Amino acid sequence: MHKIPVGVLGASGYAGRELCALVHDHPHFTLAFATANAQRGETVLVGGHDVTFAAPEDVRLADAELVFSALPHGTSADWVSRVADAGRAVVDLSSDLRIGNGTSTVPYGLTEVARREVAGARVVANPGCYPTVTLIALLPLLEAGLVAPGATITINAASGVTGAGMAPRVDLLFGEVTENFKAYGVGNDHRHLKEMRAMVERTGADVDLLFTPHLLPVARGILATISVPLVAPLADPLAPFRTRWLGEPFIEVTSTLPTLHDVVHRNVVRLHARMAAHVRTPTLLVFAAIDNLVKGAAGQAVQNANLMLGLGETLGLPT
Amino acid sequence: MHKIPVGVLGASGYAGRELCALVHDHPHFTLAFATANAQRGETVLVGGHDVTFAAPEDVRLADAELVFSALPHGTSADWVSRVADAGRAVVDLSSDLRIGNGTSTVPYGLTEVARREVAGARVVANPGCYPTVTLIALLPLLEAGLVAPGATITINAASGVTGAGMAPRVDLLFGEVTENFKAYGVGNDHRHLKEMRAMVERTGADVDLLFTPHLLPVARGILATISVPLVAPLADPLAPFRTRWLGEPFIEVTSTLPTLHDVVHRNVVRLHARMAAHVRTPTLLVFAAIDNLVKGAAGQAVQNANLMLGLGETLGLPT
Amino acid sequence: MHKIPVGVLGASGYAGRELCALVHDHPHFTLAFATANAQRGETVLVGGHDVTFAAPEDVRLADAELVFSALPHGTSADWVSRVADAGRAVVDLSSDLRIGNGTSTVPYGLTEVARREVAGARVVANPGCYPTVTLIALLPLLEAGLVAPGATITINAASGVTGAGMAPRVDLLFGEVTENFKAYGVGNDHRHLKEMRAMVERTGADVDLLFTPHLLPVARGILATISVPLVAPLADPLAPFRTRWLGEPFIEVTSTLPTLHDVVHRNVVRLHARMAAHVRTPTLLVFAAIDNLVKGAAGQAVQNANLMLGLGETLGLPT
Amino acid sequence: MHKIPVGVLGASGYAGRELCALVHDHPHFTLAFATANAQRGETVLVGGHDVTFAAPEDVRLADAELVFSALPHGTSADWVSRVADAGRAVVDLSSDLRIGNGTSTVPYGLTEVARREVAGARVVANPGCYPTVTLIALLPLLEAGLVAPGATITINAASGVTGAGMAPRVDLLFGEVTENFKAYGVGNDHRHLKEMRAMVERTGADVDLLFTPHLLPVARGILATISVPLVAPLADPLAPFRTRWLGEPFIEVTSTLPTLHDVVHRNVVRLHARMAAHVRTPTLLVFAAIDNLVKGAAGQAVQNANLMLGLGETLGLPT
Repeated sequence: MHKIPVGVLGASGYAGRELCALVHDHPHFTLAFATANAQRGETVLVGGHDVTFAAPEDVRLADAELVFSALPHGTSADWVSRVADAGRAVVDLSSDLRIGNGTSTVPYGLTEVARREVAGARVVANPGCYPTVTLIALLPLLEAGLVAPGATITINAASGVTGAGMAPRVDLLFGEVTENFKAYGVGNDHRHLKEMRAMVERTGADVDLLFTPHLLPVARGILATISVPLVAPLADPLAPFRTRWLGEPFIEVTSTLPTLHDVVHRNVVRLHARMAAHVRTPTLLVFAAIDNLVKGAAGQAVQNANLMLGLGETLGLPT
Repeated sequence: MHKIPVGVLGASGYAGRELCALVHDHPHFTLAFATANAQRGETVLVGGHDVTFAAPEDVRLADAELVFSALPHGTSADWVSRVADAGRAVVDLSSDLRIGNGTSTVPYGLTEVARREVAGARVVANPGCYPTVTLIALLPLLEAGLVAPGATITINAASGVTGAGMAPRVDLLFGEVTENFKAYGVGNDHRHLKEMRAMVERTGADVDLLFTPHLLPVARGILATISVPLVAPLADPLAPFRTRWLGEPFIEVTSTLPTLHDVVHRNVVRLHARMAAHVRTPTLLVFAAIDNLVKGAAGQAVQNANLMLGLGETLGLPT
Repeated sequence: MHKIPVGVLGASGYAGRELCALVHDHPHFTLAFATANAQRGETVLVGGHDVTFAAPEDVRLADAELVFSALPHGTSADWVSRVADAGRAVVDLSSDLRIGNGTSTVPYGLTEVARREVAGARVVANPGCYPTVTLIALLPLLEAGLVAPGATITINAASGVTGAGMAPRVDLLFGEVTENFKAYGVGNDHRHLKEMRAMVERTGADVDLLFTPHLLPVARGILATISVPLVAPLADPLAPFRTRWLGEPFIEVTSTLPTLHDVVHRNVVRLHARMAAHVRTPTLLVFAAIDNLVKGAAGQAVQNANLMLGLGETLGLPT
Repeated sequence: MHKIPVGVLGASGYAGRELCALVHDHPHFTLAFATANAQRGETVLVGGHDVTFAAPEDVRLADAELVFSALPHGTSADWVSRVADAGRAVVDLSSDLRIGNGTSTVPYGLTEVARREVAGARVVANPGCYPTVTLIALLPLLEAGLVAPGATITINAASGVTGAGMAPRVDLLFGEVTENFKAYGVGNDHRHLKEMRAMVERTGADVDLLFTPHLLPVARGILATISVPLVAPLADPLAPFRTRWLGEPFIEVTSTLPTLHDVVHRNVVRLHARMAAHVRTPTLLVFAAIDNLVKGAAGQAVQNANLMLGLGETLGLPT
């Protein structure tokens, strides 16, 4: 079988490695190149496969039919242009081209809500990990007009450390993270809020988002705990999610609380919801979990790449 | 120097062991007995000291001037009566006698707000770990009338596993907890809510509490992330806390976000607050951390015991 | 494609769940039944698939063409007989029928050294996790006569907690294991030694094994650090392993030190060796890592099952 | 009470912070200064106390009566000279002046075997963490002539990450260390071997040391598992240790296996030993645990400082 050559820019970080692993395990992809400037020439074991990193200037972008960019925010957009100039498709995992971020006009690849645009695109901006889990949890409520107008939706999310990348930072050392827990980026100013707000605005709902991320002593996984003031109580709290996400292969609406163990190494969002007791404002508690490196990054990128290349959306993705 | 004999009932669990360690390190206490029914006769290393457990029926309660009960909820109240009948003072760490729990009339030993009652009491109900951290964070705002009437205060708290005790449960095995994170007791029905609500009601504030606990892959520590709708923005978000807790030896109001590392093995609540941006309802984000076994259990119990015995409140407590 | 129905006895433990996950992902297997007495009727998420446990007496063993038994030591042998009586093949993951364990005559399924016997067998005893990693590391040296006669081979191994199973034990609680490390089963009397010694004896080598297991604060993985007194120094310490394991799909002889991250969720043994400096007795240091649940249990069981059923040995196994 | 001013050079690393915490809690010490070049001017919470770092050139060394140097290997010796030139006593925690390291003639502060020299010294070289735990475990056997001449003593040790310091290195990131385990510095060439061998040689015993360190996914603590070929079996394996370390306040010879939990945050070595079964060479298995930052670094440094200043050796040290 002919395999499609696919490249990874910025392959040495956590998302980049996850991409290499998914490309290796994909039935129709083959890894054309994997770049990592500082680690050029090094071979590392990624998901059971040896991957050798090249310098970005030593690869021909045109050797790949599609390129994933896992380059840092700020650096990525320029390389996306180069790939596009070389006539190749590209999925950008950075925030450079995402909705809410200036004047970008490329599709925002939250696949479940942008299938058609993604399928026809040559450049797709892959969503952030926090926005992915948050939006999959909120859009069904917002689109159905269930949220109280003017309300504040409180989003508390906790992420494993791979969400912060692989740069050597003292605050990410094992000795600093183990047996610890803290909020960060607080004050409702986190960079991920832009794309969340932009997507919420598109639903026409008039709500505020109050988002506080936390750092968990785990390698991977995000759990979002969200409280949503409603216009009226829901007799069946799962119904809006089951309806909106009916048939979605990568969204699981469950009758139990999601845990990180339920979702790690899988390309899924797992959701549960129930009404809060003992509060006069009808309030829905929504719990949503993802693997920040899979459905929150590399997995969703492959999901988008499948669509862009005319392949089955679920190919090569672990459920 | 004469030392005061002190006893511990239910000494083999995490809170019981912490009590034994604190008693050992206390300059004026000596351990009269430590009971643990299932482990009678066993000697364990606790905080650097060997402690031998006795069967509860083999100790004379009157041998201690004060007894700590770390027995399970439901079992403790009966033993508290026996200690009282023996003419000895008792600090009950269970929820049996706490405010909000039926008809109890003993002081609720949130020390910073009940010093006088505790000092004169022979029986004190020690607060739960979640209520301690939550109430120290909320009372300054509620008492000062800063919270929007009718508002829902959203409390997301995450605790280390020792908060769940030492009973052998599959869901608390290392293999189940490591690299995991989940909510539990959700729906706003957690047993700790009773004492929180009862204390909030005493302030006269008209608010709802929405409390969701989570289980962290750490041994000890609680972080509470609280969002509080206010009547008006606060120019100095720390001021209400600095004013209310002025001079308190065990409350730290800081200009940085608290972490679990900041508080473990210490008898403190560490607090920070800041206004949320980009929300139309003025909302204060409050972050509060404690060690669930120290300020959230054994440490506060010793703090109360010190007052009950006429000693300096800070004696024997790690800051 | 017709799929082969396969059953799992004792499916609720860690090895049993891993078996269910591997069966689900296997291209030619389908899960006929999964039994778990105490959890009968419960459905759990295993490797991304829902598995519903049945009571063992409610399944027909003959519904499966091959049965894996992950029942506890002592209980398993009886069920193996029942499966055999039903005319079905069986891979027993317990120690009941292993070499060195009384009068057992069934093949000892260390696949790489017993391919032919396994392929023709209806009952296979799957090796323990420690013996698997140890024997793959030692057999090349012993068989080639490289080990000093009469020497003591010192094996220090450290395992993740899933090696101890899923029974609720206080010493396996997260609070007891996190940030901890200890030896256990010391004194060279561990039950796994029997099968190691029996296999070593078959090589004719005259050596003693000194084996000390340790408990790591990780979920899965074993690293064995082995020092082997040699008859003479080795110029190329990797040569004996590269020669003996040439072409083996599940054994990786590498020029770098193996880590647990290199092997978890993979059906491999990863090996490195180098000569010790500054000792007068020529001594080889061998480092070998496996995932105790995959190559150390369920994965090797599938490897054996593939052979027993005439399938390709590597089918359905993650490398 | 007059307190003795004490300084810490290199205070921002893990050992430096532990020193600051111990100085704060010491009944006779006060912290004169704490230097940290890159973090000059910063205030950090250390063991419950705020410590503000100064630039090294901004402090007057003579302000302290004794200085601890926790500066990096290679940098420290020069500062030790400066302190000595300023007429002040110094405990050097680096390896620069340790026995076995060139021509150093200052006492090697393994306190239990060098009390007299330490008490009279103005400069003391504090031992490494691995050598401390290893030598306390081996010296009783070597000094008593119990070890088989010409034998190889196999030392497998596993350490928490703080032993590697606080420098931002990718291999020490939480994501790289959690759920992982590996050997490092293998081949019997670890820099700590020099001081171990030098101390072993002083006993006159003719043995080889084979030392392999490992990196544990814990913050602190070392466990050493040591196998020692003996001239003859020991009827009472604990006797040599109980005899040699009789009355030592910081050495615990126990009848149970030591764990990291037994020793963290304590200035002790905890020891157990038992004869190996089923080996023809009589072999003693010794298990020894310490906190690498306390008895393995800062605690032993304070122990030495107490002696150098004529104070009680156990003052200010957690047992």
